[in-house]
Amino acid sequence: MPMISDTVGISSIHGGEDVKAGLLIAVGVGPGDPELLTLKAVRALERADVVAHFAKAGNLSNARATAAPYLQSGAQELPLLYPVTTEHATTDAAYRSAIDHFFDQAAATIAGHLEAGKLVAVLSEGDPLFFGSYMHIHVRLMSRFRTEVIPGVTAMSGCWSAARLPIVQGDDVLTVLPGTLEEPELVRRLRQNEPAVVMKLGRNLPKVRRSLIASNRITDAIYVERGTMQAQRMMPLAEKSDDVAPYFAIVLVTNRWWQS
Amino acid sequence: MPMISDTVGISSIHGGEDVKAGLLIAVGVGPGDPELLTLKAVRALERADVVAHFAKAGNLSNARATAAPYLQSGAQELPLLYPVTTEHATTDAAYRSAIDHFFDQAAATIAGHLEAGKLVAVLSEGDPLFFGSYMHIHVRLMSRFRTEVIPGVTAMSGCWSAARLPIVQGDDVLTVLPGTLEEPELVRRLRQNEPAVVMKLGRNLPKVRRSLIASNRITDAIYVERGTMQAQRMMPLAEKSDDVAPYFAIVLVTNRWWQS
Repeated sequence: MPMISDTVGISSIHGGEDVKAGLLIAVGVGPGDPELLTLKAVRALERADVVAHFAKAGNLSNARATAAPYLQSGAQELPLLYPVTTEHATTDAAYRSAIDHFFDQAAATIAGHLEAGKLVAVLSEGDPLFFGSYMHIHVRLMSRFRTEVIPGVTAMSGCWSAARLPIVQGDDVLTVLPGTLEEPELVRRLRQNEPAVVMKLGRNLPKVRRSLIASNRITDAIYVERGTMQAQRMMPLAEKSDDVAPYFAIVLVTNRWWQS
Repeated sequence: MPMISDTVGISSIHGGEDVKAGLLIAVGVGPGDPELLTLKAVRALERADVVAHFAKAGNLSNARATAAPYLQSGAQELPLLYPVTTEHATTDAAYRSAIDHFFDQAAATIAGHLEAGKLVAVLSEGDPLFFGSYMHIHVRLMSRFRTEVIPGVTAMSGCWSAARLPIVQGDDVLTVLPGTLEEPELVRRLRQNEPAVVMKLGRNLPKVRRSLIASNRITDAIYVERGTMQAQRMMPLAEKSDDVAPYFAIVLVTNRWWQS
């Protein structure tokens, strides 16, 4: 088995020998409030020749909306439009095939700009390497080009901060669960009675709600939608009367450590 | 059982009826690179009357060092010095008692400034509500004063970005484990063969290393020390020849999803 340093960026972290002239920078733009970009992210956007951003076909990119105040008029924009929804389990073969093809094409387009010596910034909601689409570009290009990753505030940090919910402390174990998991698996995980974050809600919300009820955690669950944005909404999940949720909504599940 | 909204900040999120004049702001300063503060954090520091920061007695505050470029000369600094190390399990009774007393005192001092109408910023390494000391101030004061939490880039995001390691994607489950857990519990968790982050290393590193060997994950483990800082060091844990680690070092454990 190869050492992990051969497959990620460690061994060439100080710049490359056989790499091309361009530079690929993943820019985490944080959870949605434009004030939650880092100074480093803003400076990268000021330097970028090309700014790429992902969105569902027919939609505007959330990451672009968040970064809009910092985009330079001289930079070329490169929208990357998903051909399919991202709410399916990635075990679905047709979905995997379509999305793999899409990422191959997107990586090839970006590679063209890098070959031409450009600085390409790829916007990522939250943090680029935490469930971000950028990762699929990264693994396709990391051995061929210089890359840099600017971390961002995750959506979950934005949500628990907006709720002012002290989520984990001391010896707590935090589990981050995608709502795409099967219901029995969600129930099994939630029964451990530990702090948890459930991401990727959307059409998965009814299943997540049933899992929280089955695991006896529903009264400890907070629903947060568009956390840190203007349109932010939050409520105890038990008080949410419908099962409509954006894909990027989050459920926070606490162990109420401060009451023990 | 009370609704969760009664115990966290949701119900009074738009400002308070019976709350005092002062404002308590938790400021996440990120993983260590001063460029990784958010714009919102910098603006809060520009407005603060009092800037509080935690450190072990005899040490300088890491959070203060990170935020130093943005501190205003007119702001009053309030160092909060832990009487004991934070590397013990919080189940230790003597430790719990000493640390509870310390947080009671720190909260009382901050409350004094808030009663006087001051804006008090509490610096937090990483994200304030993610294993941060600020939480212990928050739970003591959140019902008495207006509070605001500015999320920050977590240390783990800083570390996996520095390593350019695409940690979680798709249906992955991420588990964040404190190194203070007992060895059998660490082994049990790591055996699940999922992406994991082990925090709070320090004197726990030999135990964490043994647990990674016992769970057959050692070749997938990357050690990162002072991630995003000038003195950053990283290597495959298997290649690290000693067991010396700062408390804030992190081990990242990947499932190498991009090779499957």
